[in-house]
Amino acid sequence: MSETDYQLIIVGGGPAGLTAGLYAARAKLHAILLEKGAPGGQVMNTDWIDNYPGFPEGISGFELAEKMAAQVQRFGLPTKVCEVTSMDLAGPVKKIFLEGGETLTSRTVILATGARPNKLGIPGEKELTGKGVSYCATCDGPFYRGLEIAVIGGGDTAVQEAMHLTKFATRVTVIHRRNELRAERILQEKAFANARIDYIWDTVVTEVLGSKEVEGLRLKNVKSGEETTLAVKGCFVLIGLYPNNEMLPLDQLASEGGFIVTDKEMRTSLPGVMAAGDICSKEVRQIVNATGEGAVACVAAENYLGNLK
Amino acid sequence: MSETDYQLIIVGGGPAGLTAGLYAARAKLHAILLEKGAPGGQVMNTDWIDNYPGFPEGISGFELAEKMAAQVQRFGLPTKVCEVTSMDLAGPVKKIFLEGGETLTSRTVILATGARPNKLGIPGEKELTGKGVSYCATCDGPFYRGLEIAVIGGGDTAVQEAMHLTKFATRVTVIHRRNELRAERILQEKAFANARIDYIWDTVVTEVLGSKEVEGLRLKNVKSGEETTLAVKGCFVLIGLYPNNEMLPLDQLASEGGFIVTDKEMRTSLPGVMAAGDICSKEVRQIVNATGEGAVACVAAENYLGNLK
Repeated sequence: MSETDYQLIIVGGGPAGLTAGLYAARAKLHAILLEKGAPGGQVMNTDWIDNYPGFPEGISGFELAEKMAAQVQRFGLPTKVCEVTSMDLAGPVKKIFLEGGETLTSRTVILATGARPNKLGIPGEKELTGKGVSYCATCDGPFYRGLEIAVIGGGDTAVQEAMHLTKFATRVTVIHRRNELRAERILQEKAFANARIDYIWDTVVTEVLGSKEVEGLRLKNVKSGEETTLAVKGCFVLIGLYPNNEMLPLDQLASEGGFIVTDKEMRTSLPGVMAAGDICSKEVRQIVNATGEGAVACVAAENYLGNLK
Repeated sequence: MSETDYQLIIVGGGPAGLTAGLYAARAKLHAILLEKGAPGGQVMNTDWIDNYPGFPEGISGFELAEKMAAQVQRFGLPTKVCEVTSMDLAGPVKKIFLEGGETLTSRTVILATGARPNKLGIPGEKELTGKGVSYCATCDGPFYRGLEIAVIGGGDTAVQEAMHLTKFATRVTVIHRRNELRAERILQEKAFANARIDYIWDTVVTEVLGSKEVEGLRLKNVKSGEETTLAVKGCFVLIGLYPNNEMLPLDQLASEGGFIVTDKEMRTSLPGVMAAGDICSKEVRQIVNATGEGAVACVAAENYLGNLK
């Protein structure tokens, strides 16, 4: 069998990729982690994390990302800052094509490219992210105890999280661009029965208002064109998650809605190819299960390598 | 529908149960965690942990367990120290029976009862447990300062703990029934480089010798049948895990080898019943995926509760 550059290539340096790398380094695999920017993934952009076990007082996303990266470095995993443009994962020799023309080959690959929340793309959104603009109710809900907030969106996640947020916020206003929710009926019924949730229909947000933190939203009715403002302290943008799959060979890999399908051992439909973290098709996307999946994916890669002739 | 005491009962306070509890408390579920002793599970008995992401220099098991428990307490999850004797999980009202006759009811249950070390099941083992026979190097290592001891097993735990024990014992003999270790490569290399560790291959222990305390082991070579004895003062049995399933209704739940079968969302074969951590039938049993599973199990419980009429 022909030689390859590596036994394992890990694509992506968020919690899933870093944990896969930690386990790979400790297992003395000839492995490399490819990351296009600073390690940490979405964690780097998360202001404060209260729900990663082991940090009773919470920890900043920046610090957690740094700690995870330092731990991987301690065990000597090589990392390379580069942009992956495409892959050929179908055969026994996996090929990873990099910007600039370089090609890396490996027996196994762990896909940990993550996902990104869909953005509104309006003024104030970027500036106030982490200062009242959030893309994760599970992460940030408890920060809004006793306050009035808005949820943007009308799908399952938006409605589910609106209900979840009423445990903290005194009033949750759901702003949706259509005149009915897309969420499943049982969720809708529960949401409509919840006295803390209001609805503004046929309406889009055109600007997030506030200087140091969110003070309100500028709204526009898409039917009448009427503009109004809504005073809120928080704005949860829950209009879907987009998989970072531009560099993945979706013609070779089983996927659902652009997310990669795996089994419980994080194996994809292709032998020797594992996936971990937010790129996977799954229900729960949290740091704590991304890391767990990274470890499991690495063990699956080891097992695959162990069974090669 | 009849009332229940809780929306969610979590059985077990190791990393899986604690993380499920963390997520349940943050989701404001009416939940309780049942634990028979101190929280932390097997982590409490682990000397040093280098592969839980977020602690670049490593952390002691005791400290990690304390931090995880403190984090759950911070969010106000009620916990109860008690022994669960049995359960009836088949119907919509889940019943948890406690020692002393109390019964707790709940809509959902997360099983996080963990696993415990396997025993050799040979003469002298039970009689001399605590008198030289140990299943926890962290707990008992310091008692063997300046003495010669044996470690039985060849997996990660056995090799890791053999190295740990060389901090105390002058000589550690690893006795393994195969002719190579199963431990991860980095551990093997370190162990082979440690001058205080010897190996006896292809060999099983047939008896623990000694009257008031361990004086030696009777050994048998599985290939030649030859019997020998080894003079040691301590014997650490590190040969894998047994599921803590005595209180579980295995007639109601799908299981494999005594471990509970789940899907990717940690749902068992019974509606409303989730499992997480070492009690699950799975390939990888590490702290990092136990915690991830705890979080996923809690979200599954929330979703189940959300779909109840």
